[in-house]
Amino acid sequence: MLPFQRVAIIGMGLIGSSLARAIRVRMPTVGLVGTDADAAVRARVTELGLLDDVPDSAGAAVVDADLVILAVPLGAFAAIGAEIAGELAPGVVVSDVGSAKQIVFDSLADLLPQGAHLIPAHPVAGTERSGPDAGFPTLFEGRWCIITPPADADETAVARLTDFWTRLGSKVEVMEACHHDLVLAATSHIPHLIAYSIVGTAADLEGVTRGEVIKYSAGGFRDFTRIAASDPTMWRDVFLTNKDAVLEVLGRVSEDLAALQRAIRWGEGDALFQRFSQSRDIRRAIVEAGQDTAEPDFGRHTGD
Amino acid sequence: MLPFQRVAIIGMGLIGSSLARAIRVRMPTVGLVGTDADAAVRARVTELGLLDDVPDSAGAAVVDADLVILAVPLGAFAAIGAEIAGELAPGVVVSDVGSAKQIVFDSLADLLPQGAHLIPAHPVAGTERSGPDAGFPTLFEGRWCIITPPADADETAVARLTDFWTRLGSKVEVMEACHHDLVLAATSHIPHLIAYSIVGTAADLEGVTRGEVIKYSAGGFRDFTRIAASDPTMWRDVFLTNKDAVLEVLGRVSEDLAALQRAIRWGEGDALFQRFSQSRDIRRAIVEAGQDTAEPDFGRHTGD
Repeated sequence: MLPFQRVAIIGMGLIGSSLARAIRVRMPTVGLVGTDADAAVRARVTELGLLDDVPDSAGAAVVDADLVILAVPLGAFAAIGAEIAGELAPGVVVSDVGSAKQIVFDSLADLLPQGAHLIPAHPVAGTERSGPDAGFPTLFEGRWCIITPPADADETAVARLTDFWTRLGSKVEVMEACHHDLVLAATSHIPHLIAYSIVGTAADLEGVTRGEVIKYSAGGFRDFTRIAASDPTMWRDVFLTNKDAVLEVLGRVSEDLAALQRAIRWGEGDALFQRFSQSRDIRRAIVEAGQDTAEPDFGRHTGD
Repeated sequence: MLPFQRVAIIGMGLIGSSLARAIRVRMPTVGLVGTDADAAVRARVTELGLLDDVPDSAGAAVVDADLVILAVPLGAFAAIGAEIAGELAPGVVVSDVGSAKQIVFDSLADLLPQGAHLIPAHPVAGTERSGPDAGFPTLFEGRWCIITPPADADETAVARLTDFWTRLGSKVEVMEACHHDLVLAATSHIPHLIAYSIVGTAADLEGVTRGEVIKYSAGGFRDFTRIAASDPTMWRDVFLTNKDAVLEVLGRVSEDLAALQRAIRWGEGDALFQRFSQSRDIRRAIVEAGQDTAEPDFGRHTGD
């Protein structure tokens, strides 16, 4: 039996539209409703035929749904919570796809009615593209989905949400929200912040033209520009809502970078070599864990 | 007419062995000699049949060559210069593939005999792999090769080297060594340093296991691990030999990162959004310039 009969997706960008597409493929009998604050996105989603129904408001979308998934930037959660609270069906599971998890409780827990189960989730999947045309049905296949139930979570609700993501092809892991936020700060948020930062630094460097930065980006820089092309609103909200863990990890990054800087200044080749040698093991382990391609250069086919 | 009749390649790693392969394909009549300090590499190169002759020493390799290319880490240049100086043919062009260029003059200019033309070069191409098995003949196709002749360079020598790299499929650009070193610090050296640094930071983070870092690396971290898997000896030497430009750009990176850190701490969402929005233009320009693939996620095919 399917874990849910009627799913409402709030926010139809890359993730929301991929979810709709994946549900259509994997659970075609599920009723599928969704909406987006942007009228142009709603029109496009209607045109693409991704949903059974595309109402104008989040409140209208969640009526009769037994699963509601918020797929909007984290800064919009509280407003949407207030909008949908009065329309939720009894026993509904309210979940999300946000990249930080403690903030989901902070934003929604007090707003939702008795009987609604708030079970946050984070599919660790995505691309640098945004919007409903960027989505695709296989986005979650083979990827981890981290579910962060509250301590007093309804076990059936957690099991149903686990079943749901497993059916979409994901591998599910359950952990505490605060631990999720630290782990993802290290594996996702800080890499994005550094990428945004360094892309900006290089673009503004005096003595080096922007054209030169673009021309010689194959030397390594272009790898950073991919994730730095991700949705700026979504990422602004990640950094604002996972502030503590991000600042904690960023402090470490700055320390380690300062140590390398000092080693370069003083010509400490052994220290550099030792540090650089460790990274190959991590790369190998990531490839062996199926988390990246084994092909050199990501198997890139540059237009040349 | 071919620009060179007999090419000696010193160092048969990723770049040296790719050069040999590319010359075989593009200029099959050229005499091809090469060597490597590592006997196992020499044996493997012989087995692969990449060269006409694989002598044991750099001195023996350069005899009668009209082009000598150093494809070893920058820290080994001076020793090789001393070794080959007495064996060089009159009029030989001595070049290299190193990632920093002023150091090439510092290491070699005083050692080479009158009549040898030192014309440094840097093909901006590579992968994260190392060794003679990692090379492939199309590595330089469509990529930039930067030539940094001295102010008093022999024009014919520069023209012959330009012809050589053009025949290998590269687009050639001529610039001053010091400018090269600043541009490449921004587009290549600093990205590698940051990648090495952050991969180490994440691997050592308390409260987060290495297994978790690997498992959830698809959130962005894995993009950094690719270039951080590059040859540690080569990169140690890049940072030691391009110290000034690297420290200059790194100072800018630290400042800009500190500004983002402050914006996060004080909840300055507009500043974050503004900074993050600029990066998309750079990414788009890199793709339009043919310096990266337009496919989302690098067109990755992760084993899932």
